[in-house]
Amino acid sequence: MLMTACASTKERNSTGPFVIQQQGSFMVGGTTSSEPGKFDLTNALKPQGQTFHGDHAYAFYQIPPKARKYPLVFLHGAAESKKTWESTPDGREGFQTIFLRRGFGVYLLDQPRRGEAGKSTVTATSTPTPDEQFWFTQFRIGNYPNYFDGSQFPKDTASLEQFFRQMTPNTGAFDANVVSNACSRLFDRIGEGILITHSQGGGIGWFTAIKNPNVKAVIAYEPFSSFVFPAGELPNPIQSASLFGELKGVEIPVEDFNKLTKIPIIIYYGDNIAKEPTTVWNKDHWRAGLEMAKIWAATINKHGGNATVVHLPEIGIKGNTHFPFSDLNNLQIADLMAKFLKEKKLD
Amino acid sequence: MLMTACASTKERNSTGPFVIQQQGSFMVGGTTSSEPGKFDLTNALKPQGQTFHGDHAYAFYQIPPKARKYPLVFLHGAAESKKTWESTPDGREGFQTIFLRRGFGVYLLDQPRRGEAGKSTVTATSTPTPDEQFWFTQFRIGNYPNYFDGSQFPKDTASLEQFFRQMTPNTGAFDANVVSNACSRLFDRIGEGILITHSQGGGIGWFTAIKNPNVKAVIAYEPFSSFVFPAGELPNPIQSASLFGELKGVEIPVEDFNKLTKIPIIIYYGDNIAKEPTTVWNKDHWRAGLEMAKIWAATINKHGGNATVVHLPEIGIKGNTHFPFSDLNNLQIADLMAKFLKEKKLD
Repeated sequence: MLMTACASTKERNSTGPFVIQQQGSFMVGGTTSSEPGKFDLTNALKPQGQTFHGDHAYAFYQIPPKARKYPLVFLHGAAESKKTWESTPDGREGFQTIFLRRGFGVYLLDQPRRGEAGKSTVTATSTPTPDEQFWFTQFRIGNYPNYFDGSQFPKDTASLEQFFRQMTPNTGAFDANVVSNACSRLFDRIGEGILITHSQGGGIGWFTAIKNPNVKAVIAYEPFSSFVFPAGELPNPIQSASLFGELKGVEIPVEDFNKLTKIPIIIYYGDNIAKEPTTVWNKDHWRAGLEMAKIWAATINKHGGNATVVHLPEIGIKGNTHFPFSDLNNLQIADLMAKFLKEKKLD
Repeated sequence: MLMTACASTKERNSTGPFVIQQQGSFMVGGTTSSEPGKFDLTNALKPQGQTFHGDHAYAFYQIPPKARKYPLVFLHGAAESKKTWESTPDGREGFQTIFLRRGFGVYLLDQPRRGEAGKSTVTATSTPTPDEQFWFTQFRIGNYPNYFDGSQFPKDTASLEQFFRQMTPNTGAFDANVVSNACSRLFDRIGEGILITHSQGGGIGWFTAIKNPNVKAVIAYEPFSSFVFPAGELPNPIQSASLFGELKGVEIPVEDFNKLTKIPIIIYYGDNIAKEPTTVWNKDHWRAGLEMAKIWAATINKHGGNATVVHLPEIGIKGNTHFPFSDLNNLQIADLMAKFLKEKKLD
């Protein structure tokens, strides 16, 4: 059984050639502002009469021949870019190429005010801040400098360096409405598809699905914050040793909430999350997230929806960090996602 | 003759499938700083003992099967990202995919402090600035709001919007040494290859080729500023109506300059550049650039080098903007580049 699984994983992890029908990139969504007055060609650095386009998302897409029905749209989390879904820190293929090989059209987004979509309608200052040992710990690679036992993060220093360097700052404050507007505009442009989110992107996933019926399913890896509840059904905040404090839900109109009950939703969390409240802040941060996710899924299902929370260690998959899709076992994680799509007849 | 050319262009612009052997992305180069002290796991937001990795470049690469000997490394210019080389503003294939289809390995860079490589070791503030009509004019699409007669920029509003949105701010001041260090580290990693630059990236091209003998040729589209000359051979600054003022060369040690005489270099400029000094600032800005490029190439060749300046209208190619590689005739521009590589036995 184990050997069969390994062989099949190896086969899927082909390093051989693959075919692309079409690839490219574009900007989508955003706003335009104009400075009053008339543009003066002889005084062209004056703002009068000039425009500023900002707050769009950037998308890089690749479509294989005879692509499956629904393309996959991938949205990164806080302090990350579309790099999240490309090569892993140790240089293996990420979900971008894994799912392209499996016949899906793949769109990778940089959200507004991040990465290639840096033109922001609000001013921002980015300052070099020594905080990488915090992120190592917050993202549950381990309790710095120690890796968790059996961690699925590669333990060589070059991989850790790649991981630290792939973070990238905001060029404008995170704004869930701005980001979900751009994501919704993407689904206007490409039509029906599946939205896959990570971390802070989780909330954007719910808001985008509320805004756009072209979102046929949401797959969320380790969402945190912005769990939305119908007015009057907000759960109590979850107390936590998290450095970000207690975790609250977000109240929205029930008509909006109900839109989330029309599509399949699956949420995955990795390992080393506390089962009971603890003072170990990283494990407790994610305990709060996982608990809130379970309350949230139960609320979705109570309203007739179809939401599932998968805590990976409970199905025997151990050692995953906050980035299961780029961990050492990411082909196994991809298999789970493919299985979900198949079960929901979305592949 | 014309029909033959058209047919062959169409053939090359296949929209059919193509094969990729390998693709992925990584961060390269950069520096690491550490805050003195010891990381305190129980006080993990304090900087003591934490690190900051910054000033790396980001590279996205695609390698076709049986790739040609030298991969092509593409570096964008000011206020741009690797998007420069991807889909054109009107959605046609850019040089990324055109040259991939022609069998070259392709690396697209985001320079340090830009795009996916946003982690900067210096603080920066980005402010939304209405300046797009200036850039339209500076980049010789036309004299806003008029397009130049026969402009190779698509004239629909959606394309112009894409063009404006693809600009993206710095997350740290432009520093030619920081950028060329990261580019040189890329050539350490990938080995020998061809460096293709745009605009402000031109200077980075010279500095990278000086730093790294793995750069086997430099192809520069509309370089401006940072033309390097041997100590004692600096030409007089070129006066210009450019909004950036007079154009000066940069003095470097002759030993460094001589390294640029060991490789083929080709420089391309588009159309609507003044032949004589004029008060039309955009046309005069690029007149200064083109004149300096010619002085520079002559200096390279006087020292035994192999540099060529191609002013596209002089070989009958009209209407090109500051972005010839994404203009409507970009397949013709690609053909020229391919011809150069073939002539120099670099393909």
